[in-house]
Formats: sequence, structure tokens, C-alpha cells
Amino acid sequence: MSPRTIGVTEVALRDAHQSLMATRMALEDMVDACADIDRAGYWSVECWGGATYDSCIRFLNEDPWQRLRTFRELMPNSRLQMLLRGQNLLGYRHYEDMVVEKFVEKSAENGMDVFRVFDALNDPRNMAHAMAAVKKVGKHAQGTICYTISPLHTTEGYIKLAGQLLDMGAESIALKDMAALLQPQPAYDIVRGIKETYGEDVQINVHCHSTTGVTLVSLMKAIEAGADVVDTAISSMSLGPGHNPTESLVAMLEGTDYTTDLDMDALLRIRDHFAAVRPKYKEFESATLVDTDIFSSQIPGGMLSNMESQLRAQGAGDRIREVMAEVPLVKADAGHPPLVTPSSQIVGTQAVFNVLMGRYKVLTGEFADLMLGYYGECLGERNPEVVEIAHAQTKKEPITERPADLLEPEWDKLVAEASALDGFDGSDTDVLTYAMFPSVAPGFLASRDEGPKNVGKTPEQLKAEATSSSDAGRAVQ
Amino acid sequence: MSPRTIGVTEVALRDAHQSLMATRMALEDMVDACADIDRAGYWSVECWGGATYDSCIRFLNEDPWQRLRTFRELMPNSRLQMLLRGQNLLGYRHYEDMVVEKFVEKSAENGMDVFRVFDALNDPRNMAHAMAAVKKVGKHAQGTICYTISPLHTTEGYIKLAGQLLDMGAESIALKDMAALLQPQPAYDIVRGIKETYGEDVQINVHCHSTTGVTLVSLMKAIEAGADVVDTAISSMSLGPGHNPTESLVAMLEGTDYTTDLDMDALLRIRDHFAAVRPKYKEFESATLVDTDIFSSQIPGGMLSNMESQLRAQGAGDRIREVMAEVPLVKADAGHPPLVTPSSQIVGTQAVFNVLMGRYKVLTGEFADLMLGYYGECLGERNPEVVEIAHAQTKKEPITERPADLLEPEWDKLVAEASALDGFDGSDTDVLTYAMFPSVAPGFLASRDEGPKNVGKTPEQLKAEATSSSDAGRAVQ
Ligand SMILES: [Co+2]
Ligand SMILES: [Co+2]
Repeated sequence: MSPRTIGVTEVALRDAHQSLMATRMALEDMVDACADIDRAGYWSVECWGGATYDSCIRFLNEDPWQRLRTFRELMPNSRLQMLLRGQNLLGYRHYEDMVVEKFVEKSAENGMDVFRVFDALNDPRNMAHAMAAVKKVGKHAQGTICYTISPLHTTEGYIKLAGQLLDMGAESIALKDMAALLQPQPAYDIVRGIKETYGEDVQINVHCHSTTGVTLVSLMKAIEAGADVVDTAISSMSLGPGHNPTESLVAMLEGTDYTTDLDMDALLRIRDHFAAVRPKYKEFESATLVDTDIFSSQIPGGMLSNMESQLRAQGAGDRIREVMAEVPLVKADAGHPPLVTPSSQIVGTQAVFNVLMGRYKVLTGEFADLMLGYYGECLGERNPEVVEIAHAQTKKEPITERPADLLEPEWDKLVAEASALDGFDGSDTDVLTYAMFPSVAPGFLASRDEGPKNVGKTPEQLKAEATSSSDAGRAVQ
Repeated sequence: MSPRTIGVTEVALRDAHQSLMATRMALEDMVDACADIDRAGYWSVECWGGATYDSCIRFLNEDPWQRLRTFRELMPNSRLQMLLRGQNLLGYRHYEDMVVEKFVEKSAENGMDVFRVFDALNDPRNMAHAMAAVKKVGKHAQGTICYTISPLHTTEGYIKLAGQLLDMGAESIALKDMAALLQPQPAYDIVRGIKETYGEDVQINVHCHSTTGVTLVSLMKAIEAGADVVDTAISSMSLGPGHNPTESLVAMLEGTDYTTDLDMDALLRIRDHFAAVRPKYKEFESATLVDTDIFSSQIPGGMLSNMESQLRAQGAGDRIREVMAEVPLVKADAGHPPLVTPSSQIVGTQAVFNVLMGRYKVLTGEFADLMLGYYGECLGERNPEVVEIAHAQTKKEPITERPADLLEPEWDKLVAEASALDGFDGSDTDVLTYAMFPSVAPGFLASRDEGPKNVGKTPEQLKAEATSSSDAGRAVQ
């Protein structure tokens, strides 16, 4: 029997540099790798998402739509893939449905093929309209399960969610493990459960980070359970808070009942390209190589460092242990949301407030909204006493409907506001840029003509640094 | 059914710092972790070997025997484990049998429990006497398979070698993968094969490096196949050319049919200890995080960098591709030895000579000895034409007997020579230090009274560096 071919999604152009170097990589440092990426044989190439869009206009003076069109042109044979925060699109609030449709339509028009649609709370209602919009333009709608660990999250629950996503028309299911929490056994159980419940031909994509050092094993188990596609990053853009190395995946499967059919020569050229690029962005890299704390603390690394800096800003840097102990309680009161943007920030900041000012003496606006249902529903029930506090503080009523159902049509208003901006070119994509990032877009549109900025070091700077530091010794076995 | 408990060998005190920081860690940077290591529940604690011994006397002015006694005292409940190069002991030549016995006897007396006995060529005759000596003093004799990939190395061959080691009285079998070449499927096949051939109760220990990024999966597969003990390093001393993280192994097995029974609180304290120590030795670290090249080149990273510096020294740095192409040929002519110390250096240097001076125009003395059988037998036949060249060049006869059988008794001579050295204290252990490293021992014995040197940076130096460099940005998902 010939081995089963496992698809691979290469994340170097999006999640890898987002996770490793604060999303700072400029398009010009990617273009020379595109021909090899296009011919390597990936199932898809992830290359666009909220943080890359944000970084383009905030730091790089790059039009994110121009970036997308460039990828489309340079990788004509590849499925381009993006990460979409459901009704939030690439921003931090819910958008009215017509804005969602416009965004998806323009993304498809400019070259996007696969839309991985997720919601931080795993609330299917927040994904439904985006998925429908993707299907309407004839592109691949991938429904996403955000994986987390809590007393309420079970394999059965994830299998049920997969069913809801399939009912909404998902062409594939992504199991998304943003915090590297997915251990081998649950990876196996969830994938197997989905296949056994909904059919072996349901396509399952598995996305893991490598922070805890264990998730390549999880990918192996997911593959043994029937997973169809897995996400990896070329080795020179891998590991730490990033992803498992693509070449290691290839090596892992050699001799087994599975194969990748990737072109190793192309992979090595892609690797060499990014090996030369990565040092340019060293100042944006975290020092974390492996961190298994999250298994006991349940607190992702980025969330922890956020809380630490909030405490330090209040002169209370020594109270981090109290805040860490407070997080599970706040999370439980909120109904056990997965801790991913934005829920991780909302829960973390409230835990800091609780420790500094007394439990729920003051709620942040976002936490009150979370408690009142304005972000959607979680798996667990929210603590009614805290809901009451949120109501009393904000005078807002708790809701049970889909949050976006409360929104008025807003497209015309967005067009009008964008039209008033210096540098606005009249396009729908400029309106969308303004809609996603209203405080950053004006500055970007005004300066766009100056062209892209590269915040990495120049070859000259790197060379000067290299000659001033001695060669590192090489360990010999 | 309760899960099967997998033993763990912690390598932080030996192989981890050997692989990551050129074996430079001083005893004083280890002692504070020993109480936690002792209570963590490891199957054994690897803490001694050739490179640590060498580094102690060459760089650290530390008596390696004193280091061993300190470990014994600080970890009374642990099995201490060492790596022993068979008839080479910790040196680079074959020793006469009585020296082997003396060394093993003194090691046991000073606290060693488990002797992992290996030979670079996998020649059982080079391991037999050391194993017998270990058994004679009532300690654990572990026979080792050095794993490599070649046209001649097969799963069946490794299973057969395991049988030879068991026949020699091995109490356990180590599958040693020094180059991170062991992929998941062969890991499974070899372990399963040994168990099925010689019985399920044959203890198998698996040692992998993490260089290629794939070997935690190999450990998982080895465990599924029945492996009893695996080697890992605490996370803060892991990855890159080192080993898989201990805490990741624990996380990997959660929820499966296997468990480790390690004390996680102790692990976290050990981790924090070495997280504070590791930056002191940063200048000795290699930049390699993951490297899968070895799967195509079959050349370990350390060997490659050796050959590169040899070429550069001859002004021929641009000929590395030719040398890399020459290596498989030289390796085949030598009968396909695994490439590990010292065979990696011997084969690599000859490949350089072949490229620079013409194929086999000049043989190194070591390569001639290898071809004439003075290092023992390999799996493959040696190329008779090259054997003839070696004979012609050196006038030495090819041998087929065990190399150590040619040696005269040498203990009394070693005692006499050591006795003449400044600082010699009259002990057998000093004689052994001289026997292992005759060119380094005199300097060490003469300076021993000055006490240990720490080549790591001081806290003050680290603090000064930290304040002069800006905080690294932390990537946020
Ligand atoms: Co991700
Ligand atoms: Co090793």
C-alpha cells in the first residue's frame, strides 16, 4: 500500500514571523523565496492575517493589499491562505455583516484562496457570516476550533463544535493550538473523533505552535488519527514560540505509512533564504526556546508578560503570583473562554485589576462587555453575580443574541469617513483598512506614497556587528 | 490498566553541557541543583564521561574524581551514570585490559553505578572487557548500539548486535543516536525487534539528540515499541545540538498509556537553576537550533565544521562541496563506520586529504590504522586496495584480532611515569588521569592546588551586558 500523502501549510510568511519577530518582516525579505515556495508542493501558503495587516500599516508603510497581490503574482500555483477572526475580521470589534462581506469579497478578488475563520470564544455565531461570505465568492471556508484546556473543555465538546462548523458549510476543520497546549493523546482523540463522527473524508488541518516542545509528537498522533494537513514553518523560521520545522516533519514521516511529497531541494533553498533574513530581525525576537509552564499555569507566555508589565507600571511587580492565581478564577467566572486574542488580554487585565483594587471592584470596559455577552457565548455559564456587577457599572443590558445582530449598517459611514482622509485612493480596500484600524489608517494613508520601510537591519549593520563579536564555539560530540 | 512507567535519564550534568556549551560547565554551577535532581525520580543521572573528564583537567582545573565524589555525596538516592568508550575508556587509544579494570574499579569505588559502554565502530570485542569489569564490581553494565544510517546498517543488524551485547552480559541495551539521525519508524522497529527477539523484559534505553528536530517523536515511537528508559535534558539545558526537554517528555505522555512518575515541582526548580546558569556560558554555544541537513549529507554538524576549518587553514575553503562528496566514498572504503568520535574525525580528515592531495595519495596515521584493523571491525568489508596502500605507507600489518590483544601490560609503566609528575598524589586515580590524557595531566596535576576555575561569566559581567543591551521584544500571538 502506498503511503498516505499529508498536506503541509507553510506558515513562514505569516504566523512564523508573527510569533518569532513581532510580525516585522518586510515583503522585500520574502519575495525571493516565493518561487521556491510556489514549487515546493505545499497544500497552502499562509501569508496574511490580522497582525501582518496591522504591522504593514503601523510599522512598515506597506499596503497589505499590495502585499497580497504580490504573493498572488509570485505564487500562481499555490493556495494562498489567511487567518480571519470571524465577525471581527482583522480588527478588534464586531463588524456589521456587509463589512464582512466586502472584506471577504476584496480578499478573494486580490488572490486569497483559503480563509481559516476562527472566533476567540469558539462561538459559531461569530464565524457563520464570514464562512457564508467565503462560500459565496467560491473560496475555501475553513472552520476553526480554538484548542484550550479547562474543566469544561472535552474531546466530545470539540467534536460537537466541529459538527456545528460542518453544518455551517465548512469545507475543512482547523484544530488551532495557539498556545502549544495540544498534547499527543488529545490530538489523536479529537481528530479520530471528528473523523468517526462525521466521516473519514472530512478534511482536518492541524495548527500547533512549538513553545512547549511537544507538539511535533502531537502532529504525528494527529496524522495517525487521520489528519489531512498540518502547519509547519521552514526550519530557519521555526521553533520557540513559532512552529515545528517543515523539514523535521518530512524526516518524521520517512519510512512510515505517511509521506509529504514535498520537494526537499526547494525546501532547502527556502530555508537558506530565511536563514539569511532572520538575523536582520533579531532585536524583535523573544529568548524563549521551550516553555512548559503553561501546562501548570494555563497562562500563555504573551499574556503573562503583558500582566507583568501592567503590574510593573503600577509599581506592583512583586504581585505576579497573586495575579497568576487570580487568572483561573476570572476565567471561570467568564465561562472558560480560550485564552487567545482578545480574550487573553481581557481576562489578564481584569485579573490585574482584581489583585490591585479588590476582586471586581472595578471592571474594565472590555471585561464588562465579555460578561454581558457582547463578545458572544463561551462554553461555560458566566457567573451571574459578576454579570450583575457589569450591568450595574456600565448600565448596559446583558445580551443573548449574536453580537453583530445589534449593529446598524455601517459601510456607507465607513466610506464617508475614509473619504475624508488624506491619501485615500477611493478604493474599497482603503475603506477596509480604515475600518480595521481606524486610529492607524490615517497616518498610513497619508504616508503611503513614501513607500515601504524595512525595520530589519541592513547587511552593512549585520556585517559590522558580526566582525565585532567573536565566532561562537561549536560544540563537538 | 495503569500506565506503564517510563524511566528517564537526566543528561544535564554531562551530555547537555557537552553538546551545548563545549563541556565547560563548572561543578560549582551544578551543585545547587543536585538535591532536586536527587529527588525528582529519575532512573539515572548521567554526570561523567570522556569530554567532562578532559574539560575538567584542561579548562577547569577540577579533579574529575572529586567531581564524581561530590555528585555521589549530593545525590545519595540516585543511580549515577557515565559514558565509557569501551577499551578506549575516556581516552583516544586502546588500553591494556588491566588499565580498563583499574578504571572501572576506581569509578565504582568513587560512586558510579551505571556504565554505558560503547565503541565507535560497534565492534563488540572493544566493549567486552569493559563490560566484564563492570559486572565484576557489581555495577550495571549497559551495552550500546551506536545508531547510524548506511547501505549496510539494517534493523536486523542492530537487533543482532543487541544479541551480542546481551551475550556479553549486558544488563540493558542503549540505542545511542549521537547525530539525531534516528527517525520514528526505525526507532520503533529496532526497539520492537530487540524485544521480540530477546524477550520483553530486556531493558532498552534510548539516547537521542535533538539537532534534527524530530527525535522527540522517535522517543514516543520507541516507547510505544517498549523502550524502558529515555534520555532527556531539563528544558533550560535542552534543544539545538542537545537533547529533548524533560518537561516536554512528561507532557508528551500525559493521557497516554505511559507515564514518567517524575516530580514536576522538582523539575521546575532544576529548570530555574540552569536557566540562571546557562547565560554564563553563552560564548561557548553554537547558533544551531535545528539542522536536518544530516539526513541528506550523512555528515554530523561537528564533523562538517571540523572539515571546513581544516580546508580554510589550507586556503581551500571553497572546496567543501568536493569534500562532502568525498566523505561517503571514504566511509564506504572504511567499511561504513558510524561517524562518532573518533571515526568522524578520522574519516573527515582523510576526505580533506583526498581532495587536496589526490585520492589516498597520503593517508593520515589514524586512517591507516583504521584501514588496517587497529580500531576494530566495522560492519562492512574494508576496501582491499586502500588496505594495501595503508600497509605500504606504514609498513604495519593488517590485523584481525581484538586490537587490545596486541598490547603489553602497561599499568606499572603508567604508575612509574605518573609518579614522576609534579603534584602527583600517589593515588590510582591520578595514574588514570595521566593514562587518559598524558599531555594534559602534567599541567593539571601541577596546578591542582590552585583549585577550580570557572570559565563562565560572573553575575557582575552578565549584569553589565544586560544593562547595555535593550530588552528583546516579546512576540505576541
Ligand atoms: Co498560530
Ligand atoms: Co549524546
